[in-house]
Amino acid sequence: MSTARFSLRLRVYHEDTDAGGIVYYANYLRFMERARTEWLRTLAAAQRQPTVSEGTMFVVREAHLQYLSPARLDDELEIDAVPTEVRRASLRIAQTVTRVGDSRPLVLGQIRLAVVDRVSARPAPLASWLHETLAPLAVEPR
Amino acid sequence: MSTARFSLRLRVYHEDTDAGGIVYYANYLRFMERARTEWLRTLAAAQRQPTVSEGTMFVVREAHLQYLSPARLDDELEIDAVPTEVRRASLRIAQTVTRVGDSRPLVLGQIRLAVVDRVSARPAPLASWLHETLAPLAVEPR
Amino acid sequence: MSTARFSLRLRVYHEDTDAGGIVYYANYLRFMERARTEWLRTLAAAQRQPTVSEGTMFVVREAHLQYLSPARLDDELEIDAVPTEVRRASLRIAQTVTRVGDSRPLVLGQIRLAVVDRVSARPAPLASWLHETLAPLAVEPR
Amino acid sequence: MSTARFSLRLRVYHEDTDAGGIVYYANYLRFMERARTEWLRTLAAAQRQPTVSEGTMFVVREAHLQYLSPARLDDELEIDAVPTEVRRASLRIAQTVTRVGDSRPLVLGQIRLAVVDRVSARPAPLASWLHETLAPLAVEPR
Repeated sequence: MSTARFSLRLRVYHEDTDAGGIVYYANYLRFMERARTEWLRTLAAAQRQPTVSEGTMFVVREAHLQYLSPARLDDELEIDAVPTEVRRASLRIAQTVTRVGDSRPLVLGQIRLAVVDRVSARPAPLASWLHETLAPLAVEPR
Repeated sequence: MSTARFSLRLRVYHEDTDAGGIVYYANYLRFMERARTEWLRTLAAAQRQPTVSEGTMFVVREAHLQYLSPARLDDELEIDAVPTEVRRASLRIAQTVTRVGDSRPLVLGQIRLAVVDRVSARPAPLASWLHETLAPLAVEPR
Repeated sequence: MSTARFSLRLRVYHEDTDAGGIVYYANYLRFMERARTEWLRTLAAAQRQPTVSEGTMFVVREAHLQYLSPARLDDELEIDAVPTEVRRASLRIAQTVTRVGDSRPLVLGQIRLAVVDRVSARPAPLASWLHETLAPLAVEPR
Repeated sequence: MSTARFSLRLRVYHEDTDAGGIVYYANYLRFMERARTEWLRTLAAAQRQPTVSEGTMFVVREAHLQYLSPARLDDELEIDAVPTEVRRASLRIAQTVTRVGDSRPLVLGQIRLAVVDRVSARPAPLASWLHETLAPLAVEPR
């Protein structure tokens, strides 16, 4: 498995902005979820696996966002995702929103996800292929 | 049942606007659904009934919006809902978005809703109490 | 200029869905605007032109949506845009949302856009290059 | 000025939920902003003041959300806002999302806001009436 950092590119549309002329602060969580989804889809496809074990799903337990500089209409953004902690039933993921071509990030995110049973909502283990795939990718948290 | 026209008041927040400084065009559909929901809730409560028969739900089949003048950040809006056609398994509803204190509407909507079975998604009849409540309220379409 | 119909592909994420398990009805207007934006960007880039004349902007005057069948989480959608009327200061655009690989559309849209002056909000003419580009692409409305 | 904790009530509509049947995680930031806006509006109205000094605006610098339990369609929620730090040009605000009638919170938020000049985007001082109003309300952070 490559250790290359995954990133998703997306465009800022009118729907994403607000009357301040910048991306509305909640929408970075939408962008970050798109990137996590495509990242897990990519990992799962490479392993010919479903992204979570049958009957389970991911839920977000915690989100921490630092807004350094605003994104604007028509900006092309790059959102990455890298694990900073891989446990039996939960993950911590660091995410960065960057304007394509810039090096300075606009927004930093730390997201904690848990795996739960779809019916009981109780903690469930991460699929073993996913644990094995993610554990070696984990970096130190910022 | 009063024939007084139902209306819901709401405030325009940053989340509703876009970089043009006005309410984003899709968001009037959010506002209109809030008004329809509270209107049906009010009618159902008055009759001590659930809003749709058990096992059924409303789906939107058609929406037509005319944008006459834009709403802006901090505006207080009033959204109404009035039936223009009440059939066995479907409804047409006219909705108007107005700035509180103004008489000229900002946005006009015509929404067609169908009742469907939650499992089969096939057409299902409107609850009879709701048909009886709405039919006499129906006005000529604009 | 090719007459090939423009289309944008996009994925349905959690943000786009609602508790009914399907794409929330207002969100097709978000998808359609993304497609119109990329279409105009593509046309403008091909002509090395800004998408509207300086000091003007597009505003949506009317939107008509027909919901034929719902899109769901993880669907890959294709949204197209084709002019059905090209006038001096306004456009009508037909848009279709289709699941990739399907032929039957899920949602049909007809959108009327006007060009207005950014300051006065009065009607302004379509850039002449855009009028010349779009006029020959216009098809009969559905 | 009363030290009574401000709270805003709102209803969960379809627009707020996702295919998991719960409120989409980004939407709590929308709810929290609505509560902050109404809280500042209430404080400003009581003092016959604009919420920020002319030419300045609030920007969110940091948001930390803990998702304890999900809100669902039709839930009536209560969102509060209380300052935990009041500085010359910035504020920290603790916010709680609770289902009306429940005591256990669903979501906890800590939001850091800065005041900036609208033109230069540089830090600007909090209006003095607002500093004087908020400082005595500040509580220890959770």
